[in-house]
Amino acid sequence: MNIHVPRGTEDLLPDVTKKWQVIEEKLNHLAQVYNYKEIRTPIFERTELFQRSVGDTTDIVQKEMYTFEDRGGRSLTLRPEGTASVARAYVQHKIHGSPEQPTKLYYVGPMFRYERPQQGRTRQFTQFGIEAIGSASPAIDAEVMAFAMECYQTLGLKSLKLVLNSLGDQESREAHRNALIEHFKPVKDELCQDCQNRLEKNPLRLLDCKIDRDHEAMKTAPSILDYLNEPSAEYFEQVKKHLDAMQIPYVVDDTLVRGLDYYTHTAFEIMSEAEGFGSITTLSGGGRYNGLIEELGGPDISGIGFAFSMERLLMALDAEGVELDKDESVDCYVIAIGEEAKYASSKIVYQLRKQNIKVDQDYLDKKVKGQFKAADRLGATYAVIIGEEELNNGVANVKNLKTGDQKSVEIEKIADEIKTGF
Amino acid sequence: MNIHVPRGTEDLLPDVTKKWQVIEEKLNHLAQVYNYKEIRTPIFERTELFQRSVGDTTDIVQKEMYTFEDRGGRSLTLRPEGTASVARAYVQHKIHGSPEQPTKLYYVGPMFRYERPQQGRTRQFTQFGIEAIGSASPAIDAEVMAFAMECYQTLGLKSLKLVLNSLGDQESREAHRNALIEHFKPVKDELCQDCQNRLEKNPLRLLDCKIDRDHEAMKTAPSILDYLNEPSAEYFEQVKKHLDAMQIPYVVDDTLVRGLDYYTHTAFEIMSEAEGFGSITTLSGGGRYNGLIEELGGPDISGIGFAFSMERLLMALDAEGVELDKDESVDCYVIAIGEEAKYASSKIVYQLRKQNIKVDQDYLDKKVKGQFKAADRLGATYAVIIGEEELNNGVANVKNLKTGDQKSVEIEKIADEIKTGF
Repeated sequence: MNIHVPRGTEDLLPDVTKKWQVIEEKLNHLAQVYNYKEIRTPIFERTELFQRSVGDTTDIVQKEMYTFEDRGGRSLTLRPEGTASVARAYVQHKIHGSPEQPTKLYYVGPMFRYERPQQGRTRQFTQFGIEAIGSASPAIDAEVMAFAMECYQTLGLKSLKLVLNSLGDQESREAHRNALIEHFKPVKDELCQDCQNRLEKNPLRLLDCKIDRDHEAMKTAPSILDYLNEPSAEYFEQVKKHLDAMQIPYVVDDTLVRGLDYYTHTAFEIMSEAEGFGSITTLSGGGRYNGLIEELGGPDISGIGFAFSMERLLMALDAEGVELDKDESVDCYVIAIGEEAKYASSKIVYQLRKQNIKVDQDYLDKKVKGQFKAADRLGATYAVIIGEEELNNGVANVKNLKTGDQKSVEIEKIADEIKTGF
Repeated sequence: MNIHVPRGTEDLLPDVTKKWQVIEEKLNHLAQVYNYKEIRTPIFERTELFQRSVGDTTDIVQKEMYTFEDRGGRSLTLRPEGTASVARAYVQHKIHGSPEQPTKLYYVGPMFRYERPQQGRTRQFTQFGIEAIGSASPAIDAEVMAFAMECYQTLGLKSLKLVLNSLGDQESREAHRNALIEHFKPVKDELCQDCQNRLEKNPLRLLDCKIDRDHEAMKTAPSILDYLNEPSAEYFEQVKKHLDAMQIPYVVDDTLVRGLDYYTHTAFEIMSEAEGFGSITTLSGGGRYNGLIEELGGPDISGIGFAFSMERLLMALDAEGVELDKDESVDCYVIAIGEEAKYASSKIVYQLRKQNIKVDQDYLDKKVKGQFKAADRLGATYAVIIGEEELNNGVANVKNLKTGDQKSVEIEKIADEIKTGF
């Protein structure tokens, strides 16, 4: 029996990877323009990292992690998201000691969650994300949101909505938390089992529940924005003022809650408003985490970041009909006639490639006609034809396949002819 | 207690990732020039894949795989190498039906082997590799070796050696195998336990043994080259003739054996000859596999490929003192004087970035002097300075930090001024 990819994973074949390459190139460029630098962390981490950072009560940690023991008996987990690993690296390498602050990092790579596979949701997915650590300025919250929006805009997406909320500081969250518990206690028995379990531990997560979303009590739940203390309210105002100055449109939604435990103050999502995009319209999410670095043993330093799934980005590009073009045709195809010409062909191909010319030749012992067909299929602009006569004279016949023009060229001068063009 | 990366893994911080970016860009370009296209396969595969392809008797499968059960009870393994996954994808997606043949693919990504960590050998490492599937022409063996050499040469490495061998076809291997068993049987008891176990199952692997390498019987072991049947010998001659035509130097070494079970005919390695590179000098290895695709349920189609570890490539660059430069300085730094100017600064930064100008600003409420220092540290060519007066007049002061020249510029025209330069 044939072996297939594991459930919830997929192969990206060349017609798809060429799109990824275009996207990654643009994102890398954008990161440079925004002065963020790349960090790469391991695919797996000690399980404890995610328990401590993402949070023990989250779905991710409770149900979705790929956790296993290595041959030395250590519990390891394939990373389910990127922020925890970046924060861990920040603490481990004492990056807060670097003179360049805040530390602005980006990452791109595979993440893993054991979820029910569906369109745009795979068990292995690829996240692009950034983290700005070491600044508590509202200006950087605005920068991070601008970057997030730009990731989509630079690729040509238009139907986007930036949704913003503030979760406030510790004190504000505490006040809101108590109000939530008071609010939901009377109807506790009507809620789903998960919500009942979370009511005392983490009532904010109730607002996120997909099962109880239509319960009456959800609609009248106390708004975090009414519980922000003065510094938190002031911080939120300044974030909005920066966005206004940058003329970046947004809507405030006080029900926006991020699924991870470590967020404080700014929380945001970018939604697709493209028709036919599907029911889950969130493309990207992020926010500020003011306790995470300390929780992992570092100093009391705050950060903000966002991440998005590349797979969902590709869905959004499809929904808006954005084509990412990449020219994959070769410049030249070398056609050998006869056995001895094959070695000369290998030599010419090798030399042209040394000159950065995209070139290929036949590896299937095709007849001349078949070789011309292959040249055509690869979109070659030029064909170089060598037979016995050409070999003896040290020349080759170079043909422009678009115009039909051809000329006899010394073998050493083929690269020049093709680069100059005729 | 702080959480560190798992043993045998490492974080790549920005001073290292910038080198990786340069390397990956060059390799991607090289792949285009050689007309290879990217494939991305999942990080984990069904365990059975590696048992069937890499081989049950290999160290990789027996000792080094990260194998675990997912929440559905399936046995999964973090991929220890790339060829098996590419071959699996080739069969699963019936790529042999594509009109463009041979199928020329490349991949780059993390691989995992539970080995004793040492310099240049980590448990998570990154492989770049190519596979050309669907051609049995010696010309493509030469192309693959040329590509492998070029990966290093394009980065500036010079002390390289291409080592070549032929393992022959099935018949030749069988004859050699019997000769090896005959040869080693009399001294079986003097060999290490691994070699004793492998003698009947896979005697070729004995030549690879690090423990018994100095045993007298190793030096007199029968050479595969004496057991090549006529088609195998002829194939090997043609491969060498292509390399000769391309003027690529190589040495033949009949003790070269690749660690995986699926190789036939051409096997090769690239070694570093740089002084002080360390005891393991192999940078890259590859070869032809003529049974792998069929073993995985596909047609009887042969392939050839190679792979190398990026970590070892970086070691070789270090050993030869090759610097990979990447300019990471920003073009411009915006300096805000006073509270209100901060919002204008966010706006200007945002607009300049929209124009692809690399720009940053202060996020730490620094005084003007500190902001100039930051501009200097980031290597900014220009500073844009805005205070209350500038704000009121809709202009900013743009200063060339290299020459000291400055001028007053309307805010909307800053991008043009910087792009034009002064």
